Amino acid sequence: MSIEAFFNPRAVAVIGASTNPIKLGYSIVENLIKGGYLSDTRKVYPINPKPGTILDLPTHPSVQDVPGPIDLAVIVIPDKFVADAMISCGEKGINAVVIISAGFRESGREGLERELEVIDIAKQYGIRVVGPNCLGVIDTTTPLNASFSAGSPPKGPMAFMSQSGALGTAILDWAMGGELGLSKFVSLGNKADIDEADLLRAWADDPVSKVILAYIEALPDGQEFIKVAREVSKKKPVIAVKSGITQSGARAVVSHTGSLAGSEQAYKAAFRQAGVIRADSLQDMFDYARGFSYLPPLKGDRIAIVTNAGGPGILATDALERSGLKLARFENECIKDLEKFLPDAASAANPVDVIGDARSDRYSFAIKRILKDPNVDGILVILTPQAVTDIKETAQVVVDLAKTSKIPLMGCWMGKARVNEGSEVFKANNVPNCPFPERAAKVFKAMSTYRQYRAEPIPEYETFDVDKAVVRSVFDRILSENRLTIGDYESREIMKAYKLPIPEAELAASADEAAEIATKIGFPVVLKISSPDILHKTDVGGVKVDLKSASEVQDAFDMITYRAKRYVPDAKIWGCIVQKMVPEGLEILIGMNQDPQFGPLVTFGLGGIFVEVLKDVSFRIAPFSRREAEQMIYEIRTRSLLEGVRGKPPADKKVLIDTIMRVGQLVTDFPEIAELDINPFILYEENKGGFAIDMRLVLKPEKEAAA
Amino acid sequence: MSIEAFFNPRAVAVIGASTNPIKLGYSIVENLIKGGYLSDTRKVYPINPKPGTILDLPTHPSVQDVPGPIDLAVIVIPDKFVADAMISCGEKGINAVVIISAGFRESGREGLERELEVIDIAKQYGIRVVGPNCLGVIDTTTPLNASFSAGSPPKGPMAFMSQSGALGTAILDWAMGGELGLSKFVSLGNKADIDEADLLRAWADDPVSKVILAYIEALPDGQEFIKVAREVSKKKPVIAVKSGITQSGARAVVSHTGSLAGSEQAYKAAFRQAGVIRADSLQDMFDYARGFSYLPPLKGDRIAIVTNAGGPGILATDALERSGLKLARFENECIKDLEKFLPDAASAANPVDVIGDARSDRYSFAIKRILKDPNVDGILVILTPQAVTDIKETAQVVVDLAKTSKIPLMGCWMGKARVNEGSEVFKANNVPNCPFPERAAKVFKAMSTYRQYRAEPIPEYETFDVDKAVVRSVFDRILSENRLTIGDYESREIMKAYKLPIPEAELAASADEAAEIATKIGFPVVLKISSPDILHKTDVGGVKVDLKSASEVQDAFDMITYRAKRYVPDAKIWGCIVQKMVPEGLEILIGMNQDPQFGPLVTFGLGGIFVEVLKDVSFRIAPFSRREAEQMIYEIRTRSLLEGVRGKPPADKKVLIDTIMRVGQLVTDFPEIAELDINPFILYEENKGGFAIDMRLVLKPEKEAAA
Repeated sequence: MSIEAFFNPRAVAVIGASTNPIKLGYSIVENLIKGGYLSDTRKVYPINPKPGTILDLPTHPSVQDVPGPIDLAVIVIPDKFVADAMISCGEKGINAVVIISAGFRESGREGLERELEVIDIAKQYGIRVVGPNCLGVIDTTTPLNASFSAGSPPKGPMAFMSQSGALGTAILDWAMGGELGLSKFVSLGNKADIDEADLLRAWADDPVSKVILAYIEALPDGQEFIKVAREVSKKKPVIAVKSGITQSGARAVVSHTGSLAGSEQAYKAAFRQAGVIRADSLQDMFDYARGFSYLPPLKGDRIAIVTNAGGPGILATDALERSGLKLARFENECIKDLEKFLPDAASAANPVDVIGDARSDRYSFAIKRILKDPNVDGILVILTPQAVTDIKETAQVVVDLAKTSKIPLMGCWMGKARVNEGSEVFKANNVPNCPFPERAAKVFKAMSTYRQYRAEPIPEYETFDVDKAVVRSVFDRILSENRLTIGDYESREIMKAYKLPIPEAELAASADEAAEIATKIGFPVVLKISSPDILHKTDVGGVKVDLKSASEVQDAFDMITYRAKRYVPDAKIWGCIVQKMVPEGLEILIGMNQDPQFGPLVTFGLGGIFVEVLKDVSFRIAPFSRREAEQMIYEIRTRSLLEGVRGKPPADKKVLIDTIMRVGQLVTDFPEIAELDINPFILYEENKGGFAIDMRLVLKPEKEAAA
Repeated sequence: MSIEAFFNPRAVAVIGASTNPIKLGYSIVENLIKGGYLSDTRKVYPINPKPGTILDLPTHPSVQDVPGPIDLAVIVIPDKFVADAMISCGEKGINAVVIISAGFRESGREGLERELEVIDIAKQYGIRVVGPNCLGVIDTTTPLNASFSAGSPPKGPMAFMSQSGALGTAILDWAMGGELGLSKFVSLGNKADIDEADLLRAWADDPVSKVILAYIEALPDGQEFIKVAREVSKKKPVIAVKSGITQSGARAVVSHTGSLAGSEQAYKAAFRQAGVIRADSLQDMFDYARGFSYLPPLKGDRIAIVTNAGGPGILATDALERSGLKLARFENECIKDLEKFLPDAASAANPVDVIGDARSDRYSFAIKRILKDPNVDGILVILTPQAVTDIKETAQVVVDLAKTSKIPLMGCWMGKARVNEGSEVFKANNVPNCPFPERAAKVFKAMSTYRQYRAEPIPEYETFDVDKAVVRSVFDRILSENRLTIGDYESREIMKAYKLPIPEAELAASADEAAEIATKIGFPVVLKISSPDILHKTDVGGVKVDLKSASEVQDAFDMITYRAKRYVPDAKIWGCIVQKMVPEGLEILIGMNQDPQFGPLVTFGLGGIFVEVLKDVSFRIAPFSRREAEQMIYEIRTRSLLEGVRGKPPADKKVLIDTIMRVGQLVTDFPEIAELDINPFILYEENKGGFAIDMRLVLKPEKEAAA
């Protein structure tokens, strides 16, 4: 069902409308009226049991008493009456309800029950719900202000959604202070029904909204969010501030909204996969929002700087390069032209220093000339208020050029007292202007990141030919024996079924059998204890390597099984795995754990010290495409080890990527896998493949898996 | 000589004063007058060859024609006349001159010569000089505005120095817009005489200046800067923005001021050693400046958050923890009191959520109670403009409590339109208020970093008992042979003289001698080619390890020398070093290269892959104390390898630190060493020491060393 009625309803009922100006039920009616919603065709119906008028509008005791149709109801009555009001709405045929009232999930167990009841009613009647426990909904185009905000924000190209209503009040206040222009604003509250994914879908093709902004605390249905966001962000930029990334921060989320915070790694991977631009602070978000809303796309990474002061030019250069962008290298013709026109002391190379006595005409000339240079993808114009500087006129120059420019132009007017009149010109003309060059550089960087994401094709998921039935039967056997962990003998069956490369190996029940197998597969071999009760084999002395003869194998078998029994007296011992000893190679770790919000989070890293000491790992949420698996292996800091360093040849990245993808498929096919670890995967040089030496799996308890 | 005359002169002459309002010579006289400098005892003398008056002050043809004494002259005449004006000043007995005029070092070779001439004159007469090529000097206490700035900045506790005059105009404009309150402002220009170190020294005990701010592009006398700054920053915070840190940025510095930019690593080490707080942007600098100026010191890392909105509380928590600070854990009594007073839906644990309907009294109660909790070192008060929020009154509550509080209180009033009236209360009362919690967290972090630095004792340099004469004679021999590089045979002499632990080894001139030496020192041994012409021994097959018998040694000797001659036919071959083979251990790299500004920059890192792939190294500028060497080894990301991981025991950090310090002493004693590399140093577990296996040195060419 479309959620258009939330933004462009023909009539709005306010259930709980009040004549008392300090009540929210009054503010909402007031905002609807003052926000300009009322017209010949658009009605507002205050619902209140007492007959009379509210702000000159006649009240009705119930929505059912309203003669005409109603598209949207705003409920602002005590929590215990909300369910009844929902039924009224349903009976009236209202399909869209904003529940402002608090006292639901956020307030504890009883509240949660009330919320579930309300949602049940909503489903029954086909009602979509925003909230409960929210600030309301605003659409500046309609115009509709169905919220208790203190006034209406100015119109603009930014659609904003916020999980936190309180933060929403600050956002609206920033907007009303001139920082943001909004197309839509939704306070999501408890997200009992409508959530971020719904709004993304609804706003994807909204012509008024050029950029979608989101303040996110938790995404309980993370997979759905990724699915929707990855398509929407191909159409327009989605910028998010995610809170609760650190441990204490995450705890605060839990106590705040009662929802589970996903791990920072999962969010990082999810946003990367979905093309969501992460802003590190609201300040960054506002800067990005203005850049994306008001500038043409940045088509490359080559930025030109025009400045009347060397110092800030250097600061800008530093900031651009630190963020991975490049200083544009002008063509010779451009440098010559600049040299001809600019004074001797000026610098015609990028950053272009038009020097302290530049008036607006000199800026104008320099910018116009640079705009003609095909080696420039964006221009940052810096101004400091020197003795003869034309602060306002130069701003006008930039604004005028920005209007027709196909590449982004941004201002950096530094200062406040005198500089303000220039900054006002930028603001009035919707050309971004940052007071500090570092912030401008971050905007260009965000635009560059978005361009790269947008250029990527929508990921296609490959499916390998695997034997799911084998895995199914292994899992069934494990669960039937009330076990949850799977060690290497059984995990070998799984790896074989998913065609992961594994070294030749067989289970031996006795020392003699072990020697026999070893002779068959060829020396040297490795012996490992095989027991469902021993997961960490080396801890119990359960591994012997480099065994070169039958007698060494026999000795090792006896030694290992003796030790295992001594360390874990009750352990069921199946025997020992006799495995062909493989040559040394690069140690790789491939793992997976279930993120509570996003599901299977696959980890990749170089094994041993790199994972343990440096935590040098990368993440993707399964399912992922081949391209995403490739990106994953290039994200680690030690990626050059895969390329070969210190005279070593490059590693077999193809086999590595295939392996990561097969693991991705396995954990997608079997969501009952709670954890998985291949450690180590031994990787060889190009075309030489590799071996998954050990895989450990943990299944979810059956109840949880079923949920 | 004191430079007090620049800030509090009895009389000022403006050489080049003008009646033309568009000339700088007019602006300066105007600023002196409008800035309030003139009084019964304070005179301004416009110097101009034409008789008359400028802004009602009578002109004089020369300073020598002025009857009374003059303490300060401001020169603003064309470059070629400056030298003569300097002589006049000298003859008149003026000891302080600000040269505004440009056309010196920054304009090329001739300008440089003019600058050197001017400085010669200054030295001759004992004149101190600010500039040339600068904006001037301001002291708001005197008050003195001897600059051509557009107006005078408001008084305040911040002393600002800027290498860039243009950036200075922006700084002053921010100040005049209410962002900063300045005690002093100096535009340093070309720094022909007075530089950052001079001003630090002068402002260290200035009671009006609570914090020193610096915009730095280059520090040609880096060692002097460290020496002065490390003492001044014990007295008051020194905050710097350093530009030119990236490669292109550094290039821009060179073309801008003609001075050499030090490497980012050297600056990082220098600022760390000198206790200088690095701000990543001017915005951060302003935030820090307000924090340090207006708040009591932060005595620990435990921060409390009071907020009327959950979301921003989480953002603040994230930002605090990301920066390494902690959320304060309240004592039980405090939580109980908060629970008693706050509504049920509020959160009494940190972050304290006083929830959306909080009026100023609830904020007041919560903050007052938290102020009594001894587990809190600082408080961040966050406000969003909700329906009933007391924006202004709550700001007043924070301001009033901040006035008497012994711990820092900071505001974070989020929003703009309605919130502005609260922000104004903060500004009017000089209580820091950041619009975004992330920025407030960075301020607390800067305060914490400074507290830690201040708690450290002034470093004491230990001197080991070494034999400098041996090193001197080795260097003399090398230089006399027109060589600059020193390989392991000769470098062993140096290591012995500085008592660096080295494995037993001797030079053998023949295969037989090699076998003899090996038998004496014991097998196994390593053989390495010894030649002044071969620095990279392994590249020519010049190393053989694990030789276990006399005959193996003889064979290896012949093989190595044969190969060496084949690869480098003209090489002078001294023979082979026979070295006791040492057990495996942790590979360490200790190096040094000369930074053009700071001198000997010593590098430490774990050898092999960690240095090559991860660039995981730390730096200090020699000389450094034992404490600084200790910090150095803890700064690398792989420090846990020194502590022992994967079952390995901790390494012998004492020997490692001693070795780093001895290297520090060596490069301090012999500034003619251009580069030094000990690679590898093999380090063993605690109390087992280590060995410097190879050391390579490069000397500066003699001319350069003498300079």
